[in-house]
Amino acid sequence: MPAKMFALAASALIAGAGLAKAQAPTPDRVQLQANAAALRDQALKGSPAYPFLRDLTTEIGERLAGSQKEHLAAQWAVARLKAMGFQNVHIESFPVPGWTRGEERAELISPSVQKLMVTSLGNAGATPPEGIEAPVALFHTYADMLAQPVGSLSGKIVIVTQPMVRAQDGSGYGALAVMRFLGAAEAEKRGAVAYLVRSLSTSDSRLPHTGATDFPPGMAPIPAGALSVPDAEQIDRLSADPSLKGQPLRMHLVLTPTFKPGATADTVVADVVGRERPDEVVLIGGHLDSWDLGTGAIDDGAGAAITTAAAKLILDMPRAPRRTVRLALFGAEEINFAGPAFAAVRSAAEQSHYVIAAECDFGAEPVYGVALPTGAAKTPYGAMLAEAIAPLPAYVDRAPARGGGEDVEPLSPHVPLAELQQDGTHYFDIHHSADDTLDKVDPHRMDKAVAAWVAFTYLAADSDVDFRAKPSSP
Amino acid sequence: MPAKMFALAASALIAGAGLAKAQAPTPDRVQLQANAAALRDQALKGSPAYPFLRDLTTEIGERLAGSQKEHLAAQWAVARLKAMGFQNVHIESFPVPGWTRGEERAELISPSVQKLMVTSLGNAGATPPEGIEAPVALFHTYADMLAQPVGSLSGKIVIVTQPMVRAQDGSGYGALAVMRFLGAAEAEKRGAVAYLVRSLSTSDSRLPHTGATDFPPGMAPIPAGALSVPDAEQIDRLSADPSLKGQPLRMHLVLTPTFKPGATADTVVADVVGRERPDEVVLIGGHLDSWDLGTGAIDDGAGAAITTAAAKLILDMPRAPRRTVRLALFGAEEINFAGPAFAAVRSAAEQSHYVIAAECDFGAEPVYGVALPTGAAKTPYGAMLAEAIAPLPAYVDRAPARGGGEDVEPLSPHVPLAELQQDGTHYFDIHHSADDTLDKVDPHRMDKAVAAWVAFTYLAADSDVDFRAKPSSP
Repeated sequence: MPAKMFALAASALIAGAGLAKAQAPTPDRVQLQANAAALRDQALKGSPAYPFLRDLTTEIGERLAGSQKEHLAAQWAVARLKAMGFQNVHIESFPVPGWTRGEERAELISPSVQKLMVTSLGNAGATPPEGIEAPVALFHTYADMLAQPVGSLSGKIVIVTQPMVRAQDGSGYGALAVMRFLGAAEAEKRGAVAYLVRSLSTSDSRLPHTGATDFPPGMAPIPAGALSVPDAEQIDRLSADPSLKGQPLRMHLVLTPTFKPGATADTVVADVVGRERPDEVVLIGGHLDSWDLGTGAIDDGAGAAITTAAAKLILDMPRAPRRTVRLALFGAEEINFAGPAFAAVRSAAEQSHYVIAAECDFGAEPVYGVALPTGAAKTPYGAMLAEAIAPLPAYVDRAPARGGGEDVEPLSPHVPLAELQQDGTHYFDIHHSADDTLDKVDPHRMDKAVAAWVAFTYLAADSDVDFRAKPSSP
Repeated sequence: MPAKMFALAASALIAGAGLAKAQAPTPDRVQLQANAAALRDQALKGSPAYPFLRDLTTEIGERLAGSQKEHLAAQWAVARLKAMGFQNVHIESFPVPGWTRGEERAELISPSVQKLMVTSLGNAGATPPEGIEAPVALFHTYADMLAQPVGSLSGKIVIVTQPMVRAQDGSGYGALAVMRFLGAAEAEKRGAVAYLVRSLSTSDSRLPHTGATDFPPGMAPIPAGALSVPDAEQIDRLSADPSLKGQPLRMHLVLTPTFKPGATADTVVADVVGRERPDEVVLIGGHLDSWDLGTGAIDDGAGAAITTAAAKLILDMPRAPRRTVRLALFGAEEINFAGPAFAAVRSAAEQSHYVIAAECDFGAEPVYGVALPTGAAKTPYGAMLAEAIAPLPAYVDRAPARGGGEDVEPLSPHVPLAELQQDGTHYFDIHHSADDTLDKVDPHRMDKAVAAWVAFTYLAADSDVDFRAKPSSP
């Protein structure tokens, strides 16, 4: 840690002295608080996050789980993390379906010949190479489609154009994601030959937004895709145009993705080994895989970069924290294969030594709140974290964490989870689209997220906080 | 004209009475000023522009010059203008090259395999169906490329990544358009096998922006395209990445446009016949053709809609203006074939009866200034126009018009031109891209443009202004 960094830590300590005295802190707590402030300020001065993200998205680009590029990204990350000085750097491979995008074309045939911008959903099936032509069954809400009886949409291309709500915490996406994730299977049950949704997007771009869809075991995947927002609105207008009344909607659709048997994906794991209790693990990370349309800058190169930078700042301290900080860069978040694979190779006994786990997977914007496991907000840990992140500004949420990120959820039966809430107001403008590229990232704003992550991680790793402890009554 | 409209006109007249008295206006001028104000206010209350634009872009969509859709658009416009009550509605057809977009794919092969988003430039040549693979010669400015000797870029795919400046009046586009319009031919002279430019765009979208390129007679067109802004920046970063130094840029490029011999395009012409001097013509219009990537909402459905709405407001007056208002919806502006064809079928003698000509072709945003022929700002016409558009707000420019729009330029040897300046600050975010769709247009802001156009047009048609008169000394 550079001398200047400790000078900043000292001044932060003096500024916070009044509060610290009122709470009669132990000498250990004074040191923890000072170190957390110093790490936060070091992050704000310029962390390794942006160079990591710039080089990953420039030198590798897209990183679809199971693809050659995703393997290259894992090798790139191993070399990078070793060069940065991390310990126990290794790859954990696991099988994935190897879904790969093919041709993508859509055109209205009636009532007006018009090209539409469409992209396949991950895990979806394929049309024949020449495509399919079929009448359209149009629904303005997902509930309207679900209300149709089984078999009633036979031979139709089902389109659902329900718009998504913009919300800072991503709740608009959460509320509607089922339309993309389960809609294709629901449409197939009702007889559909293909399924298209309005992109889960808050932008007015013609670029469609992909994402995973899912079919129950034994159901053959039908072709499924996302239309851009303006294309969905165009279809809504055409269906409502009085001078075209009575002319049916018909569409020609080409979507030819394939599956690659035997494909695997790679999760990269690295440690900052704890100085006193190395078997106690604070797990943080992001995911290295991305959709193939953009270069995965905000989803989730940023999360990988932010947590790598936070771990690196801790690695560079003159003395390692008491516990181990484990960094995981997951290899198949987008299709939800990485988290289960990570949990499956760790026994319940091993997981019982994980102090806490949290994944950073919501873009490159600042963290504005941290939600901890039930009761932890009121512990000394919660108070120290609140003190450390207050200037960003960010708060410790009064409500407990509702999750911790897709890849750490499978640990949740045994491991407490935390949620570092990033500002997602504009996240879904570019999420899962070709627009997810480096130019959308502001390095200084991303470093504000690093500042919160490093404070959260350091305080958990160098204190004796126990997130499994029963909350004491107030 | 509804009674309410004249009530508004009367109040506008009272508000302007002080100024009018100071200038000792004639009774005729008082009436002209009142009518101009009434037409302006009628436009602001809701003009026919948005319904025209909505229906054109919804029912027809894209309208590439010489395509089936462009002919459909002309037929649509004829029916629409007749239904609106215009006189002498007819189509004027003329030959065009019939350039049609084909497949478009680009991929870096080295130093990193990466898909790039590219689109063909209009009039450009084609690669073989399987594409070409070649080394890249990268230039960060157009001048750097022009500085290369003839033959020195033999076998290369030439890429120029100079960024465009955002400017309210579009001057950033004017300064750099030569890079797209002439760059392919200049690269070919130097030996290039293909030419790619960074899109002439002020956006950070992955959607590339097309536009015409030109080759001198006798030169076979090479493949030429535009890269999206983020893709151009990615290539710049890859070429500068220290860990990739010495690894050459190589690219695989597929662009397969074709030409359709015998193609024609259609300009639609309609009149509001003058009550006293019908052979004296005030010519306004926009262009009905568009690029094929979007639905041509801002370029130039909006210009067609704004001028149609202005003419319709004049058509609906209880008494026609003295002179004829002629509306031209040009059929091939994007490749500059419509203006020469329109001028060619009108003799110099006929053109000498055109009072003035102006084309609306800069989006759907408000007009903030009107530039008139030299000296006209200081005439009674200039004063009346300034008074009519002041509340929008908009001014009469102290400087004379430098042009009047691509399609009316060929008239300029014989016809005075005017320039109604629209706010183009955000125009080049979506211009010539797939993002040029109706959702980008605000009806109320577009009606502010109609208000300026109707005042400009009406005052020229119902006064005796002579834009050819020598300006009197001040």
